[in-house]
Amino acid sequence: MSNNNIPEKTIERLSEYRRTLMNLHRQGITHIFSHVLAGMQGITAVQVRRDLMLIGFSSDTKKGYDVEVLIDFINGILDSPTPMNIAVIGMGHLGQAITRYFNGKGLNLKIVAAFDVDPEKVGQTIEEIPCYSMDDFEADVSSLDINIAVLSCPSRIASDLVVPIVNAGIKGVLNFTSKPLNFPLGIVVENYDITTLLEKVAYFVKENEENNEM
Amino acid sequence: MSNNNIPEKTIERLSEYRRTLMNLHRQGITHIFSHVLAGMQGITAVQVRRDLMLIGFSSDTKKGYDVEVLIDFINGILDSPTPMNIAVIGMGHLGQAITRYFNGKGLNLKIVAAFDVDPEKVGQTIEEIPCYSMDDFEADVSSLDINIAVLSCPSRIASDLVVPIVNAGIKGVLNFTSKPLNFPLGIVVENYDITTLLEKVAYFVKENEENNEM
Repeated sequence: MSNNNIPEKTIERLSEYRRTLMNLHRQGITHIFSHVLAGMQGITAVQVRRDLMLIGFSSDTKKGYDVEVLIDFINGILDSPTPMNIAVIGMGHLGQAITRYFNGKGLNLKIVAAFDVDPEKVGQTIEEIPCYSMDDFEADVSSLDINIAVLSCPSRIASDLVVPIVNAGIKGVLNFTSKPLNFPLGIVVENYDITTLLEKVAYFVKENEENNEM
Repeated sequence: MSNNNIPEKTIERLSEYRRTLMNLHRQGITHIFSHVLAGMQGITAVQVRRDLMLIGFSSDTKKGYDVEVLIDFINGILDSPTPMNIAVIGMGHLGQAITRYFNGKGLNLKIVAAFDVDPEKVGQTIEEIPCYSMDDFEADVSSLDINIAVLSCPSRIASDLVVPIVNAGIKGVLNFTSKPLNFPLGIVVENYDITTLLEKVAYFVKENEENNEM
């Protein structure tokens, strides 16, 4: 089944709903109403219902959504049949933070390798993940069956990674450097520059202040 | 001037255009055509022209955009008249990565303080930023005139920060924890859970693969 018509923002929220639902499930909660789930996400019940309608999920309205059934349903939308393997490129503070954050989360996504150029890091195990040299990048990505790369390297070397990533057969890139990257069609790329996120927050703070002064 | 009608995605791109333009300016480049700027961002020239039209910028089409004039124009849209001060809450790997990333970028935004609960960090200077105790959070935020908080603390304590943040008078929050947070009207919040970003990339990789198999 292909769901190309699901908006990007709905995909993000499905990921968030699932994490909230898994927490509830661990607490033994079996059912939840849309407005309660919405409150936990800081959005409206209408938004929750619209998202679930979009993916074709219908609920028992008397008791609310069945938590376990809804988790399984979202799994079917978001997850690929086999887990995807992730490589973190650049094992500085950001790379280590991302890796630590993920370890043991039991997701369908798994960080299996880190890559760095620092001889002090290569060959070590950092945050329980083996760190490989960039010298053997393409061969290692292939033998470890890596689908997705997270770029947490210095921005000035980001462009140099495009060709190796393409050649290695990586299909998705989450780019945290400040250099927006272009990849050929067929490779998914999401650029998340922290400066941009912060400048966006600052802009809306400024706008709020200006509106209050009017 | 208020620009409430500028879409969020345009604000993000303006921040990206500005960084690219500032790099060009440092290299002595005085003019740039929309399609060249677009190519550097990995987007279409139509998108660049639409964004700049939205903010009311008109260009000399023979030589392209004047780089310096366009930077100043974007400054006028994005920046507040006085620099905004930022606090990073949680000085683990992620907090340190964000701080290092920002230091010396010469932006209109400035990380002026870090906060942590770890007695080994409190009182220290980390990445050139003084680290304060969470015990005096509200008083320190007020005396340091902090407008924006970046949350890079463990997710399990994120909810406990909502009341102190509101009481301290912070107006914008960039939340990197996996706990989506609700703030009262008038406080801008952007939730960026790294898990969500990665699950989104994985979803679109899966979709591409399924479409190729059809």
